[in-house]
Amino acid sequence: MKVRVLILPKKGLLDPEGRAVKEMLLENGYSVKDVKVGKVVDLEVEEGTNIKELVEKFLVNPLIEEYIIE
Amino acid sequence: MKVRVLILPKKGLLDPEGRAVKEMLLENGYSVKDVKVGKVVDLEVEEGTNIKELVEKFLVNPLIEEYIIE
Repeated sequence: MKVRVLILPKKGLLDPEGRAVKEMLLENGYSVKDVKVGKVVDLEVEEGTNIKELVEKFLVNPLIEEYIIE
Repeated sequence: MKVRVLILPKKGLLDPEGRAVKEMLLENGYSVKDVKVGKVVDLEVEEGTNIKELVEKFLVNPLIEEYIIE
């Protein structure tokens, strides 16, 4: 089965990459209110795999990241 | 307006991060056929912003990446 996992910085936490992209876009004339940069992980795994466990144990740092499983 | 952009390595191209995650998951007992790792960029921009132009000019390397605007 195919699963997409989005991993984003927790709200309120520093997101240096997001801030860098925001500043670059502002400098290039775009009107940008906010930018967040995270990871997308596309997995192709065996049916019945415990995705939540896999994500929480191996892909996400719960202190600074939140995730969405699509 | 809020826009989510997913940026993934083009099919067939080397994805070292995806391969590293795959090997780590296999070593930890998961049955994984494929892993792809890319970026998710959440933008909050002014209504009417040309997102396609913004993405193609500043966020994506068209030689090695493909993107999806959600």
